Amino acid sequence: MQPRSSIQAMAGYVPGEQLNDPSIIKLNTNENPYPPSPRVFEAIQSTLTSDKLRKYPEPFGDSFRKAAAKVLNISPESILIGNGSDDLLTIITRAFVPEGGLIVAPTPSYVLYQSLAEIQGGRFKKVPFNSDWQLPKPWPIENAFLTFLPNPNSPSGTALRNAEIERIAAEVRTPFVLDEAYGDFAEENGLALVGKVPNLILTRSFSKFYALAGLRFGFAVADPKVIHELNKVKDSYNCDVLSLAAATAAIEDQKYYADIRAQIIATRGRLSVALADMGFRVTPSQANFVWCQHPQAPHKPIYEALKQQKILIRYMNYADYGDGLRVSIGTNPEIDTLLAELKKLI
Amino acid sequence: MQPRSSIQAMAGYVPGEQLNDPSIIKLNTNENPYPPSPRVFEAIQSTLTSDKLRKYPEPFGDSFRKAAAKVLNISPESILIGNGSDDLLTIITRAFVPEGGLIVAPTPSYVLYQSLAEIQGGRFKKVPFNSDWQLPKPWPIENAFLTFLPNPNSPSGTALRNAEIERIAAEVRTPFVLDEAYGDFAEENGLALVGKVPNLILTRSFSKFYALAGLRFGFAVADPKVIHELNKVKDSYNCDVLSLAAATAAIEDQKYYADIRAQIIATRGRLSVALADMGFRVTPSQANFVWCQHPQAPHKPIYEALKQQKILIRYMNYADYGDGLRVSIGTNPEIDTLLAELKKLI
Repeated sequence: MQPRSSIQAMAGYVPGEQLNDPSIIKLNTNENPYPPSPRVFEAIQSTLTSDKLRKYPEPFGDSFRKAAAKVLNISPESILIGNGSDDLLTIITRAFVPEGGLIVAPTPSYVLYQSLAEIQGGRFKKVPFNSDWQLPKPWPIENAFLTFLPNPNSPSGTALRNAEIERIAAEVRTPFVLDEAYGDFAEENGLALVGKVPNLILTRSFSKFYALAGLRFGFAVADPKVIHELNKVKDSYNCDVLSLAAATAAIEDQKYYADIRAQIIATRGRLSVALADMGFRVTPSQANFVWCQHPQAPHKPIYEALKQQKILIRYMNYADYGDGLRVSIGTNPEIDTLLAELKKLI
Repeated sequence: MQPRSSIQAMAGYVPGEQLNDPSIIKLNTNENPYPPSPRVFEAIQSTLTSDKLRKYPEPFGDSFRKAAAKVLNISPESILIGNGSDDLLTIITRAFVPEGGLIVAPTPSYVLYQSLAEIQGGRFKKVPFNSDWQLPKPWPIENAFLTFLPNPNSPSGTALRNAEIERIAAEVRTPFVLDEAYGDFAEENGLALVGKVPNLILTRSFSKFYALAGLRFGFAVADPKVIHELNKVKDSYNCDVLSLAAATAAIEDQKYYADIRAQIIATRGRLSVALADMGFRVTPSQANFVWCQHPQAPHKPIYEALKQQKILIRYMNYADYGDGLRVSIGTNPEIDTLLAELKKLI
C-alpha cells in the first residue's frame, strides 16, 4: 500500500496556518479583510433550497460562464470553472504533463507548482527572478511541457508587464499558465493577451479579490479548443451549486469590488511607507500583500513575536533565495495594530 | 497546445443530463427525492458569515472528521475529505497509478473508472460480472496498481457480500477501492472491513443518501498511513466551508436519514414489483435505483417516450453487455406518474 515513489518522497504542500481563534489578526494567507458583496449572500440564500441541494449542479457552470463572459468581454466557451484556482492548476498539469515531463516556474514563487510536478511524476526546474524581480532574457529553458508564471508574483507582489509576458510566452511556445490569483489587484492584467497569445492559459481565483476563499472558486481562460480538452480532465461536478451562485453574483458586482480594491491599495501604500520608515526594504507591490526584509532585524523572531501578540503574518524562507516577511493587507485598524507592535520589536 | 495523447483520444466522461426545467420528473442520476436534513440548512445558515466566506476553510476538514469518526466508530485519522466521491477516486488514482499502470474494474459498472485511467495515462482492464452479478473466482487479474469495486454496483444495484469482498481484496493484494457511493442503502457495508483488510480504501458519497449532490462532498476511509499519503495529493482546500458544515450536520442526523432510507426502500420494492408485472426483468436492488430490461420492448424508445412526457430515466448501453433502463427511486407520486406513463407504452 505504498503510493507512487514521487509521492512517498514528497513532504506535501503545507498551506498557511488556518487558526480558528477569531481574535487573531490574520495577515498570513492573503484573504480579503472586507466582506464579500451583499449580492453574494442574496444569491446563496436564494439557492439554498432543498431542490438545489439535493440535485447535481451544472457540470460546466454555464450560468457562471455566461455572466463572466459578459463582464470580461470574452466568450463563454473560453472559460473553465474550477474548485479554487488550485483545482485549475491541477487540471492543467494533468492535461499536459506526462510522467517525466518538464514543468518550469520562476523562483521564489508559489511552491505548489513543485508539488504538482511531484504528484504528476514530472520533472521540475526553477528559473530565478533577477534581483529586480524581472525574468531572464532570453528565456533559458526549452522543451517544458508546462510553464507557470504567477503575476503578480508571491511573495514579491511584483508584476511583469504584458509585453514581457508576451515575449516569454512566445519563447516558451508550449502551454504557458499565467496565474493571476492576484491579477485583479494589479495595474495591468493578462485578459488582453487571450486570443493574441495562442499558448496562454490564464487562471483567476475568487479567494483574494472576491473575498470568497471559504467557498473555493476560480476560473481559467484560454482558447475554446483548449478549454474543451481541460473539461475532459476536470471532475464532472467540480463546483457546487452555492459557490457557482456566489461567484456569479460576485463577478457581476464589479462596483462593490472596485471600492474594496481602492481601499486595499490605499492601505497597502500606507503600510509600505510605515515599514520603510522602520528600516524595512519593501518591495513595491501590485497585490494585496507586501513583501519586506529588514537588513538588521532577523525575520523569524519578528514573525514569532507577532504571533505571540495574536498577529499572524507569513514568514517565508526559500533555500535558493533567503527569507523575509509577507504581510497581507488587512483593514486599517488591523494594520495600525500590526504597526504598533512592530515598532516595539524593531 | 495539444494535451497528452491519451486525453486527446478520450471522448470524456458524459455525466447524466442535468436539465434545468423543474417540471421534469428527474429519475436519471440517482439523486435523493427527499430534502436534506433540516439541520443541514441550520448549519449552512450559521456558517454564512462574512468571516467564514472570506477565510480559507479547514484544509483537512478536521471538524467533519471528528464528527464522522464518532458516528462511524473509527478514528478521525482514517478519514479523507473529498469534493464529492469523484474527487476521492481521482486523488486515489493519482496517488497509486503511474503512467502505463494497470487499473481494473468490473463491467458493466461506473464508466468513470475508465476515464480516470485514460486521464492518468494508465491501462484499463475490465472484469465482466457473471450473469448473476457475482465476480469470477479466482480473481482473474494480477499486477493491477489499483482495482475499483463499486458496491452496490451501478447500473445493476446488486451488492457483493463482505466475505466476497474480503476474498477479492486478498487475491488482488494491491490498493483496492470499495466504492460505496450507494453503500448507505445496502443491507451490509464495508466499514466492518476497514482495519481488517489492509489494502482496502472505502469511499462514500453525500450525493445519494444524504441528498447533497449540489454541495459536492464525500469521504474515504482507510489506514491512517494511506490517508496521510492521499492528503498530500488532494488540493489543499478541496472542500468549502459550507459543504463541510452541511456534511457534518448531515452525518450527525442519522435518525432523519434512516427514515428517508426506509421510505426509498419501500418505494423501490413497489416499483420493482410493478415493473415485473409489466414484463420487465428487474434486478433485485440494494441501491436507490432499479435496473430493468424488457425481453420484448426495446429500451431506447421507452426512454425517449418518457422524456417526451417530461420523465427522465437513464438509458444505458454497454458495448460489452447490452442495454437497459436505470430508474432512480423518486417520491411515491413521481413513481406513480412514471408507472402510469409506462403502462401506456408497454
